[in-house]
Amino acid sequence: MKINIGIIGYGNLGKAVEQIILSKHNFNLVAIFSRRMITSKFNTKIESYENISFYKDKIDIMLLCGGSFADLEQQSREAILHFDCINTFDNHKKILSEYETLDKIAKESKHRLIMCCGWDPGIFSIIRALLYSISNEKPVVFWGKGISMGHSDALRQVDKVLDGIEFTIPNQKAVNLVRRGKIAEFENFHSRECFVVAEKKYHKAIKKTIKNIPDYFKGQTTSVEFISHENLLKLKSKMSHKGEIISNFNGVDGSKSQFVFKLKTSSNPSLTATIMTRYIEAIINLKNDKKSGVFTPLDIPVKSLFSKDYQRKLLEIIC
Amino acid sequence: MKINIGIIGYGNLGKAVEQIILSKHNFNLVAIFSRRMITSKFNTKIESYENISFYKDKIDIMLLCGGSFADLEQQSREAILHFDCINTFDNHKKILSEYETLDKIAKESKHRLIMCCGWDPGIFSIIRALLYSISNEKPVVFWGKGISMGHSDALRQVDKVLDGIEFTIPNQKAVNLVRRGKIAEFENFHSRECFVVAEKKYHKAIKKTIKNIPDYFKGQTTSVEFISHENLLKLKSKMSHKGEIISNFNGVDGSKSQFVFKLKTSSNPSLTATIMTRYIEAIINLKNDKKSGVFTPLDIPVKSLFSKDYQRKLLEIIC
Repeated sequence: MKINIGIIGYGNLGKAVEQIILSKHNFNLVAIFSRRMITSKFNTKIESYENISFYKDKIDIMLLCGGSFADLEQQSREAILHFDCINTFDNHKKILSEYETLDKIAKESKHRLIMCCGWDPGIFSIIRALLYSISNEKPVVFWGKGISMGHSDALRQVDKVLDGIEFTIPNQKAVNLVRRGKIAEFENFHSRECFVVAEKKYHKAIKKTIKNIPDYFKGQTTSVEFISHENLLKLKSKMSHKGEIISNFNGVDGSKSQFVFKLKTSSNPSLTATIMTRYIEAIINLKNDKKSGVFTPLDIPVKSLFSKDYQRKLLEIIC
Repeated sequence: MKINIGIIGYGNLGKAVEQIILSKHNFNLVAIFSRRMITSKFNTKIESYENISFYKDKIDIMLLCGGSFADLEQQSREAILHFDCINTFDNHKKILSEYETLDKIAKESKHRLIMCCGWDPGIFSIIRALLYSISNEKPVVFWGKGISMGHSDALRQVDKVLDGIEFTIPNQKAVNLVRRGKIAEFENFHSRECFVVAEKKYHKAIKKTIKNIPDYFKGQTTSVEFISHENLLKLKSKMSHKGEIISNFNGVDGSKSQFVFKLKTSSNPSLTATIMTRYIEAIINLKNDKKSGVFTPLDIPVKSLFSKDYQRKLLEIIC
């Protein structure tokens, strides 16, 4: 029996998710929901976001592909009333409050939401927690150089910004120190380079507003450069990103260990979409176990990313 | 209230576990059980292994520190009758059968065993499964150069072997190919160098026996060299080890991603002991949830490595 899937949001992430869902024989992509007028090059059915509730008996799992800054909080609250949901919420500072608020709604509506299902938060969260449990110290994380989808989305919401993008760049001195097992002491481990398209008369105000967006840019080493739309499109074609987690651990006997987890990807949206769709199996397992509420990747045992039938095999070939 | 801990086995792992347990204020180390005549430099109470059942009301969690080759199968079957247990079983080919056999015993005795709680199997199993779920291809793993505790233990069980040790060495050509995103095709990705102390007249027979130990050396690139006891002790002082997991993933849209997870440690037993003791919290959580049976790290959500009280904080600072 096929799993009926819906997608909300049709930016880079939504498009990447569509392509993955269409490539899987056990999924049926029912519709993509958007507030904008859009078309799918794969002829997927497009519906207005306002109509999601009419699909409550036609869609099993809704994949929320809006941005964390402006869309996901509201969309998660609305979609969880009718569907099991997965999102890639990535505002680290708001995860706990979102988790607790949505958990109540999900339990009442008897649905499940797995939130933060990207590479960070998501896969990186699992690794960080694992290494934190071993070493009792928070692992150090470096992102980039690469385009952060969350930060780019946030700056595009600023009034009078026509388009824009953000590159996250790690402090290479800090990277080198931590890799060598040292403690790096810098105010910021990253800088954030923003490239923005806007009319000249708004530049000063936009720059100030971006630099003061809480959770995203405020208190960080942020630069804002205004460029032409043509040059922005060139920058936007670079969808690559990187990340690195480093944990240096000193044992009670004085022994030393180091764990390093590194990711590089040529397409941030495509990788994020892949990870997000892998959590569909986890939703199915939660439903079979009659569990409702909100979950993050930290709540999901790794074996639940595989079907119940496959879990025995997994133990044999992977453990 | 303190958790009452027992240790079975007093080799490198048992000694490292003892030191960690003694360093924690919330643990009470009740006794170490061994078949040999041993003494603890920390004055921990030593008991004969045969007496474990007398401690059934005095010990909450038993940490099984014997070797997988000769000890763990039997010790796990016996200890699980009386205690919640953790082991570091590391014979990958037997994990599934051990899991299924012990699960029945544990459910009948209403206890919990978390097996395979080292770095591999253990932490590496979690990473492998996670990356396998993303890419649908088994990640490649390279171990070493370093001493494998499991393989060293296995060869020491061979008749007439007085002492010995095994170094696992990765095929550097294969490492370089896989790191560059290529597929490496070699019969063996590792070689295994064994250093053995034995009387000269037994050398030929020992060599043949070691090379034919199933699951450990048979079918692998194995060398066996006989050395003096003095030289062996020098080699044994090198407790360092390494491991690397590489997963190259091609997205449906042709995008490419690479995940690399690397570990290096100056003390394999100390790191293994640290990981093993972190699963004590998971046992406590399983018990509170009234779950019994056998579990591996693949069954345990990462948040269960932390106390129930701390899990909310974990979401805030780590996810």
